[in-house]
Amino acid sequence: MTTEKKSDSYLKNIAIVVVEPQGERNLGAIARAMKNMGLSQLILVNPQCDPQSLEAQKMAVHAKEILFAAQIVDSLSTALANFQRVIATTARERTLRSPLETPRQALPWLLEANLKSALVFGREDSGLSNEELNQAHRFVRIPVHPQYESLNLSQAVVVCAYELYQASLDSVVNIGPLQIESAFPSSLATTAQLDGYYQHLEKTLLEIQVLYPHTAPNKMAKLRRIYQRAQLNGEEVALLRGILGQIDWLAQQIKS
Amino acid sequence: MTTEKKSDSYLKNIAIVVVEPQGERNLGAIARAMKNMGLSQLILVNPQCDPQSLEAQKMAVHAKEILFAAQIVDSLSTALANFQRVIATTARERTLRSPLETPRQALPWLLEANLKSALVFGREDSGLSNEELNQAHRFVRIPVHPQYESLNLSQAVVVCAYELYQASLDSVVNIGPLQIESAFPSSLATTAQLDGYYQHLEKTLLEIQVLYPHTAPNKMAKLRRIYQRAQLNGEEVALLRGILGQIDWLAQQIKS
Repeated sequence: MTTEKKSDSYLKNIAIVVVEPQGERNLGAIARAMKNMGLSQLILVNPQCDPQSLEAQKMAVHAKEILFAAQIVDSLSTALANFQRVIATTARERTLRSPLETPRQALPWLLEANLKSALVFGREDSGLSNEELNQAHRFVRIPVHPQYESLNLSQAVVVCAYELYQASLDSVVNIGPLQIESAFPSSLATTAQLDGYYQHLEKTLLEIQVLYPHTAPNKMAKLRRIYQRAQLNGEEVALLRGILGQIDWLAQQIKS
Repeated sequence: MTTEKKSDSYLKNIAIVVVEPQGERNLGAIARAMKNMGLSQLILVNPQCDPQSLEAQKMAVHAKEILFAAQIVDSLSTALANFQRVIATTARERTLRSPLETPRQALPWLLEANLKSALVFGREDSGLSNEELNQAHRFVRIPVHPQYESLNLSQAVVVCAYELYQASLDSVVNIGPLQIESAFPSSLATTAQLDGYYQHLEKTLLEIQVLYPHTAPNKMAKLRRIYQRAQLNGEEVALLRGILGQIDWLAQQIKS
């Protein structure tokens, strides 16, 4: 029972975030699968359907309260502002600089006691945009057979929720890979802190003409990927912004 | 490609058997999940709904052929007559003589090259009877959270089909983790490239007085940690050094 409670507390820190879902039944099925697997926090970004519709409730069966408690926000960055570990799911083998991992490899990383973690799913038809993907630290692709690679959204959530729950049972001790340095895990930068840094970086680089408006999105995406992979903590963000501040000052000197 | 085919041949020997399914949508969702995970043989025991209905087809999307090829029989013993390894799923912790195992423990046993294997699922509302369970060799229960233990039938199939497919990938010697390496192309920066970057970074930061000789070692160690964690490739080192070059140029302007 003690381990049960401990694994519960890990699961409670994890939010399932769904971007622009279109299907009410999918939302109901997602809520049910979440409750089956010990999850409870659902965040919907700009939903294209009614998460409290009768269809959704019918599919949720005894998990309606998850639909009713779902938080609705208008952008993914708002949804993620307070989260410290973010994994995004993708169906495409894209040219990301970060590796695609399996659910089993990556998801245990979300089970950390004092961190707020999010697992992000995209639209039924088109998934997540590159810009949305860039807000995550790690990327998961569910291995599927090449004969039919398109998973139903709610079934993708089922698979991931199942893996999360199994991992929470497996080990209160054994937490996934990439644990290189989480001696002070709770100091990991929040998404809002990181966004502040990226905005500052872009502004500075435009100012000193490393970036030009037409090259900025592409190069900023590359720079973001570097820092996302590095999993900065708050102190490191402050260090990097200190450098930017000094560069800003230099640039002012030249202007004046 | 050869390995792909080998795992396929394992999966081809496995039939999904569903006893008295009631929901057409569930059957469609099952067909889709099966095709996603490399399975193709569906056997329905005395179905209580039409597996070829439009509702079922709609949920199957591109897996309609599995619905159309589904074999329909009138009893579980007929369904299982030619099978050599049978696992039954159950939601209840019943007084079975045999232990309940998790999907991960038991399902790989079905992946045997020359054996015909079946995985049996029960009715949406009442599962399998004891008599039906007794026709299996092993028993699987999907671990679920005590707050809501009832899994949707098609979601239970998704979880098991997913476990089967993962096991089929694992079992073929070297498929392993999905391309973790190829996503970090072999262009990972060399130690020499990284050292060149760190030296350049230190020189520039000293020049613009972010660093002073007495603080340099400590802060440089922190900065190195960030970039080491990010596992830069050669192109990224070039991008970062391009930024430094521009800052160097700025600093020159001020001096002169």
